Formats: sequence, C-alpha cells, structure tokens
Amino acid sequence: MELYFNPRSRATISKWLLDEAGADYTLVPVDFETRQHKTPEFLAINPAGKLPALVDGGQRLFESAAIALYIADRHPAANLAPAPDSPDRGRYLSLVVYATAQLEPAMGDALLGAETSSSRGWTDYATARGVIERELGDGPWLFGDQFTAADILIGSIFIWKRMFGGDSDGARIDAYVDRLLARPHALRTG
Amino acid sequence: MELYFNPRSRATISKWLLDEAGADYTLVPVDFETRQHKTPEFLAINPAGKLPALVDGGQRLFESAAIALYIADRHPAANLAPAPDSPDRGRYLSLVVYATAQLEPAMGDALLGAETSSSRGWTDYATARGVIERELGDGPWLFGDQFTAADILIGSIFIWKRMFGGDSDGARIDAYVDRLLARPHALRTG
Ligand SMILES: N[C@@H](CCC(=O)N[C@@H](CS)C(=O)NCC(=O)O)C(=O)O
Ligand SMILES: N[C@@H](CCC(=O)N[C@@H](CS)C(=O)NCC(=O)O)C(=O)O
Repeated sequence: MELYFNPRSRATISKWLLDEAGADYTLVPVDFETRQHKTPEFLAINPAGKLPALVDGGQRLFESAAIALYIADRHPAANLAPAPDSPDRGRYLSLVVYATAQLEPAMGDALLGAETSSSRGWTDYATARGVIERELGDGPWLFGDQFTAADILIGSIFIWKRMFGGDSDGARIDAYVDRLLARPHALRTG
Repeated sequence: MELYFNPRSRATISKWLLDEAGADYTLVPVDFETRQHKTPEFLAINPAGKLPALVDGGQRLFESAAIALYIADRHPAANLAPAPDSPDRGRYLSLVVYATAQLEPAMGDALLGAETSSSRGWTDYATARGVIERELGDGPWLFGDQFTAADILIGSIFIWKRMFGGDSDGARIDAYVDRLLARPHALRTG
C-alpha cells in the first residue's frame, strides 16, 4: 500500500491508523508548494486533489474516514473495529462518519469564527463536543476498553484543536486527548 | 428496525435506501415544530439531535452515510454495496464518505452563497461536481451497471439541488438525476 502523504495534512490521521493496524505501507510524499496534489497523476487517484489518498494494489481510496473503515476491517487482528456482525457495529460506523460529517466542520467553524447555519448538516462546536463527551462516558475509549478507528478519527480533531492553541475542551475531553497522545503512534502536536 | 423520520429531512435518504434494500422497518415520525428531536428520549438515540436516526434491536445509528453503509452490508441480496473483499470496496467507501464529507457541505456553501475556505475539508461546489462527473463516467451508475448506496447518497444531493431550484448541473449530471428519479423508491422532488 502507498499512502500519499504530507506531514502538514490530514494524511497524518491515516498514517496513525496504518501504524496502529500494523499495516505494511510506504509513504509517497506530496508537495503542496509545487501543487503535486493537482497533477493529472494525483487527480487520477483522488479527483478532489486532496490528501490523504491510499493505493492498495488495484484499489484507490480517498477521504480519511473511508481509509479508516477500510484499513480497520482488513486488519482484524489489530481489533480497531467491531466486527461486521458485532452489536457495536452501528454505533462504530456512526461515530466514524460523525467525525468527518459533523465534528470536523463544527471545529472548522469555531476556528474560522463562522456561525454555524441551522441548515447545515452539523451543529456548532459546543454541541458537537457535548456529543463526544456523552459518547465517551467514563472511557477510556469510545468503546470502553477497546481502542478503535473511531478514537483515531475523533481524537485527531481534538488533538488539532490543541495544536492550534484553542481553549481547554473541559476536563473529560482534555484527559481523553492526553490518553490519545500517550499512544506511541499518535499524531504529534509538534 | 425503526427509522426516525420527517419527510422534510435527510431521513428521506435513509428511507430510500431501506426501500431499495428491501429492509423490514417502520417509520417513527419526529416533529420538528415541537422539537421532538431535542427530547432526552431522542438524544439518547442521536445525541446530535438530528435526523435521520435508526434503531435496529439493540443497535442505534445516526448519520445518513453510516446508516447507508450498515444497511447495504446487512442486505447483501440487494447488491447495494461491493462485498468487503471486492476490488471495488475501497472506491465504494470513498464515494459514500465523499458524499457527506465534501459534496454536501460544498453544495451547502453554494446554496448559502458562502465562499469555501481553503482550510476546509471540502472544495467548492464546481470542483465537487467535477469529481462526480469524472467518477460517473458513462454510468449509468457510479459502479457501471451496479446501482449502489453511493448512488443514493450522492444522487440525493443533486436531487435536492434540483428541488431547491438550482441551475442545471450540466448534461451528464442532469441525465444522472433523471435516471435516479426514475427509480420507484427515489427521493421525490415534490
Ligand atoms: N474530507 C477530507 C479532507 C481532506 C483535505 O482537506 N486535505 C487537505 C490537507 S489537510 C488538502 O489536501 N488540501 C489541499 C487542497 O484542498 O488543495 C478527508 O477527511 O480526507
Ligand atoms: N450529517 C447528518 C446531517 C443530519 C441533519 O442535519 N439533519 C437535519 C434535518 S435534514 C436536522 O435534523 N436538523 C435539525 C437540527 O439540527 O436541529 C446526516 O447526514 O445524517
């Protein structure tokens, strides 16, 4: 597998995931300055011209959440996803999608100082953070003792927020971010 | 299964999907006026307080893309998803996630007249539409002759755009929307 990568991009989420999965892959560096992500060669892999993208033999993938779902299911030994027939599967899929469909744009609004329109498919950041506090409960992870791809996707967003110097996210989320950062392969805050 | 539903909501996407899957379900009406989607009972199912939400025995799901992935995999006879070990699986997951992570917010920006910031996880609408034109190719569906959940998620966004009276999306997408609307269970444009 080849992960198209830039250390200053969301591809760091996919790298974390591949490392937790124990997957065999190489990094293909993509330079933003020279716009390598807009070349015909790269657009043939990810027509949106964004990182991350992943090639696995004849398969091509884009979208960090899609890459996470794919890698987690193909590395069952790493236990990063409830199995397809598990009673946790529905909530797992919901949280992985929630990370990209709601938590990320809600944090984007907060960082850009934009008000979240009520017609959007996501809520404001405070509400989104409350959703995760509730789903996390006493933790340590979103599925209790089982660390999953949902923790990587959701956790990465809170790690970013800390990296960009945002306020505390409250004791419960702050402690969760500390636990995430203690994992050897976690996204680094620099 | 119970689908929490309002006919003026994104829950219509999940209904279309359940119907194409031939799934056995009932609709639970949720009234926005009386804020039934913000009651403690509903928040225990979907803490974001949004539709759609789905309950399947002991499982609860939220996010239209998560519901789609779940239902499609659990109804293999309907052939709405490439199998987990299929060479199309990666692109399938990518397109389902792309619908909610990029195409939807890009269309939201266009409808709200908002400029898409370059720090966002999505592109402007014209670029996103170009991505789908390219992935669709000669069609008729995103996976050639196989109609999948990706067509429902991506198609719903273009159907909405037509419903809201937007401009033509070009001959290729307009013809795709016509094909989608010809399916008996498709979202209705009213
Ligand atoms: N929704 C996408 C977002 C990807 C994304 O926006 N990547 C940024 C880097 S963090 C990018 O490649 N931006 C360059 C561009 O849009 O031109 C995902 O989660 O994978
Ligand atoms: N990303 C979510 C979006 C869901 C959503 O925004 N639903 C709207 C109705 S179309 C809603 O329930 N809005 C009420 C609210 O936010 O209070 C999904 O795809 O399921």
